[in-house]
Formats: sequence, structure tokens, C-alpha cells
Amino acid sequence: MASTYKPEQARVPPAVQLPVPPVTKFKIALCQLSVTDDKERNIVHARKAIEEAAEKGAQLVLLPEIWNSPYSNDSFPVYAEDIDAGGDASPSTAMLSEAARTLQITIVGGSIPERSGDRLYNTCCVFGKDGKLKAKHRKIHLFDIDIPGKITFVESKTLTAGENPTIVDTGNDSKVACADVGRIGIGICYDIRFQELAMIYAARGAHLLCYPGAFNMTTGPLHWELLQRSRAADNQLYVATCSPARGSGAGYIAWGHSTLVGPFGEVLATTEHEETIIIAEIDYSQIELRRTNLPLQNQRRGDLYQLVDLQRLNS
Amino acid sequence: MASTYKPEQARVPPAVQLPVPPVTKFKIALCQLSVTDDKERNIVHARKAIEEAAEKGAQLVLLPEIWNSPYSNDSFPVYAEDIDAGGDASPSTAMLSEAARTLQITIVGGSIPERSGDRLYNTCCVFGKDGKLKAKHRKIHLFDIDIPGKITFVESKTLTAGENPTIVDTGNDSKVACADVGRIGIGICYDIRFQELAMIYAARGAHLLCYPGAFNMTTGPLHWELLQRSRAADNQLYVATCSPARGSGAGYIAWGHSTLVGPFGEVLATTEHEETIIIAEIDYSQIELRRTNLPLQNQRRGDLYQLVDLQRLNS
Repeated sequence: MASTYKPEQARVPPAVQLPVPPVTKFKIALCQLSVTDDKERNIVHARKAIEEAAEKGAQLVLLPEIWNSPYSNDSFPVYAEDIDAGGDASPSTAMLSEAARTLQITIVGGSIPERSGDRLYNTCCVFGKDGKLKAKHRKIHLFDIDIPGKITFVESKTLTAGENPTIVDTGNDSKVACADVGRIGIGICYDIRFQELAMIYAARGAHLLCYPGAFNMTTGPLHWELLQRSRAADNQLYVATCSPARGSGAGYIAWGHSTLVGPFGEVLATTEHEETIIIAEIDYSQIELRRTNLPLQNQRRGDLYQLVDLQRLNS
Repeated sequence: MASTYKPEQARVPPAVQLPVPPVTKFKIALCQLSVTDDKERNIVHARKAIEEAAEKGAQLVLLPEIWNSPYSNDSFPVYAEDIDAGGDASPSTAMLSEAARTLQITIVGGSIPERSGDRLYNTCCVFGKDGKLKAKHRKIHLFDIDIPGKITFVESKTLTAGENPTIVDTGNDSKVACADVGRIGIGICYDIRFQELAMIYAARGAHLLCYPGAFNMTTGPLHWELLQRSRAADNQLYVATCSPARGSGAGYIAWGHSTLVGPFGEVLATTEHEETIIIAEIDYSQIELRRTNLPLQNQRRGDLYQLVDLQRLNS
């Protein structure tokens, strides 16, 4: 298309070039964990699943939203950990760090309730294979919905929303952008409903979006796969989601259905609602292929619309 | 959510309030027409379908993309009409105007190849029930894709892209915003891939997006329903699409599957690839309901991202 259409201006600042990862093919694990009200058990249980995933060859492990605690406003303050203090103040993330280092894998650690001062957040920590905390994403869009007779939840009763989009280069080698398992954008559950966040991440050069998420029995069947597939197809990148397994208790009932979607919006691996570990292959070379097939990034109309990433613009 | 998140700033200019249509429930017809290389037959055939739709109670009729001509770069110049000159210079739109006036319905007239000076466009005309041309949308995003061995098409070989998003208030009464069948945003086929366009229309107060579109046998099964459902669910409005029926000739093979989707992303009516007229009910009160269930417009993070509608900003 002619340059008068200004495709590069459809993102402000202009989209960065997709970084070339040193490894394009690797295995991801989606650990659809059962979660109980026993935090210690949840930590031990998650540790075992991560180890099993690593044994099966996963270089990247994704955990569910709120995997160390029941999903409820009553539980969040009780199970919350001070992640910044670390050590005994955050046994859940201490385990993730140790597991990443010991097993030499990258962990996108689902999310846990985080206490920071007098505030609580729904927070995802990403650990590199050196065990270091590489990124911390606090859920930006809180889950406040009301479908009478079906599902009503007001996360903002207890939680504060995060202030920043989170993109993470998973490698340790600063000379190689985005190694080991690429550049990953993080969202938590309800964040996936906001297409702008995925668009920002794509413009920042993400290969993969990871959404730990616990959709429910109403919005799960309606929207869970739809949202994943559309974020992937519209932005031509990989999307991975990880839900808790469906519990048998009386509390919040998770939809399950953790899924990996490719850059053509195709479901590459998925499951039902039982506890399981999905192992699936990611091939980042597919991103370039799909962007050559459908060169959307060169066809956008920057003369008509622009998506502004305020954090990147102001940095 | 607290106002520090500035949800109103997530759209620039801020989203307008959804207009209240005087009629919230009405029938729409999606005329999935067979299309031949005989233009005169195509016009007579479309006229009959529109009449049948009106007899079945449709107040809004949607036609397919390129319904008066084969879909090919060879055909576009041959079948193109000078819509602005009207009359004998545009028998296809003359018929639409007459049918709208005679049958007292609104017609979103799919699209035809338009000649304007030395340029060709893929153009959708909307006629009000007084028979007057209410809007003309020239496809903004041309269909230039290359999936080797599957589908390669370069519309920009012959066509020029339109310069404007198109929103239309279908009523005649200037005292009542958006009557008779609401405020409609128009896109043509490949336009649906660009989520920004749908977001702009939603911010302009659209109740319904109409996409005449001829997806193909590769991207049809992959993306046609996905794109419609995600535009509807993300923007919480109705989406209607209309494809030509699948032809038996050697040319471009249309996917068919004209569809109506509701504001929860739910498929309300659809079909396979044969010629048919879908009659389905739209209920605009569902839009308010879904926006109350999931108040996305109040939850967007205008402090983090903003979608700018340049035409509206500069007008």
C-alpha cells in the first residue's frame, strides 16, 4: 500500500521490529493445577508439576492465576505475600525462583495475591533460568463484572490495579535481545479482554502473550477461547493461557481449558477442566511466516487511527 | 475503578454516548446471493431477494461484497459503475435506491466496483427508506495477501483504498439521532481484520457493524467467524456479515457463512455456503445489558493506552 496510508504511524511510538530469538522452537508447559485452601500443599504441588514439566522438556512453564490461594476476596488478604521482601515473606515466589534456577527453565509464575504496604495486587512473577526475578506484572484491569444469576465478582473490593504493562525479555545475555524463550507480554485473566494491551505488546515486539487466567462457568464457554484466538490472530503472535483446574468446592468455579494458540489464531493445544500438564511446541518462525502471508503491519491506516502506548511514549 | 485510570481517555476524542434508537427490535436480512458474470441478471436477482426479504419483515437488508460482478481484478474495471453520476451510469445503485424507497427499508448495499475519474474502488452504498444515498464507504484496507498454494490476491493492482471510516445514522428525522435502524459502521471484507476500525466505530456510538465480505476457502474457515465474534464481543455491539454464495465456476471461491453476531459475541444466525436469505432479529437493548454486565468502557486504562480517531479528532 502507498506510504500515504502511513502504516508505521498506526502505533505511537512506531512498532519495534520483531526481535530474532536465538532459539525459535521450544516446548512450553501449561500447568493446569488443582488449587486448595492449603497454601503449603499448593506450593509443594506446583513445585512437583514444574519439575514434571521440565522433565518432559519444557523450557518455559506457565502457571495459573492465583495458584497458591482460593480465588476469593476473603482469601486474597490471608494468602497474600510480600514479594519484594522475598524469602520467608514470599514462600511461593521463593519456590518459583529455586525451581527456575535448579531446573534451568523460565517460569511465568501464574499469579498470587501480593501485599505491598497496605495494598493488595494480583501479581505475576517471571523468573529466568538463573532464578532471578525478571518481571512482575500486577493485573491492570480488575475483574469487576455483574451478570445477575450467573457470575458477579468485584475484585476491586480488595485489590488495587497495577500501573504498568509488562513485557519481558527472558534471556540473560544482553547482547542477544529477547533470548532464551523470546519476548513475552504478560496479562492476567481480565486483562485479556482489553485488546489495546495485546496491541501494545505486539508493537513492543512480543513473540508470545501469557495470560494466567481463571475464567468462570459463564464467561469461560462464551469468551475464553474466542479472546485468546482473536488476540493471537489480530496481532499475529502466540498466546498461551493457564487456568486452575476446576475445583469441587463451593467457591469460585474455574473454567479450565488452558490453551496454546498460534499466530494464525489456531488452537495448537488445549484441554478440558481436569488437572493436567499440557506440553506443546512453540515455533517462533511461524510468526514471520504469518506476517508475510497477511502483512497487516504494513496495511494499517496510520492516517486514520493510531494506538498510543503512553508508557513507551513517555519513556 | 478510580478515575485515575482515566477510562474516558482510552478513546481520543472520548467515546460518544450510545444513541437511543426509537426502535430497538427489528429484523435484518442477510442476502447471501449467487453472483454470475451477467450483471443485468445479478441486478434483477438482487432486486428479487431484497423484495423477498422485505416481505418477510426485514427493515434492514444487507447484500454481499461485489454482488454485481465476479470477484476478480479482471472484472472490476469492466463491471465498475460511476455511482456519483448515478442513473444509467450506475444501474446497480439505481436499483438499490428504488428498492429501498419502494419497499420502505434501509439497504446496506454490499459492495460494487466503483469508477470515479480514473480510479476504481470497492464501494458500499447505504440507502435510507426514502431511497436517498445516506453513505458511501470505499473499502479502506485492500485485500493484498499471499498464502502460497492457498490464496494469493492483490486488490491494489486495480483498486484504490478509501480515505474515510463510514458511520451512518439510518433515520431521516434529524430530531432523533440514529433512527430508523440505528447507527451503523461500515467495513468491507478485509476491513474486518483491522480491529482499530471497529473500535473507532464503537467510540462513535455504533449499534451495529455491517461487513459485506467474500472470505475464501483458506481464511474463511480460519478467521471469518472468529473476526466477527471478536469485533462484537470486544466492542459490545452487533456485527452482521454478508458473503456471496459459493459459485461453481473457476474463479474466486467464496466461503459463504453470512452471519449475525450479538454483543456478547454470540452467533445469532448463520448459514453454510448455498444461496439463502437469513432473516434474524436484532434487539439493541442487548447492547446496554451487556455493557452493564461487563462495563469495559469504564474499565479501560486511558492512562496507559489511547486509540485516536484522526478524522473525528480533526473534524
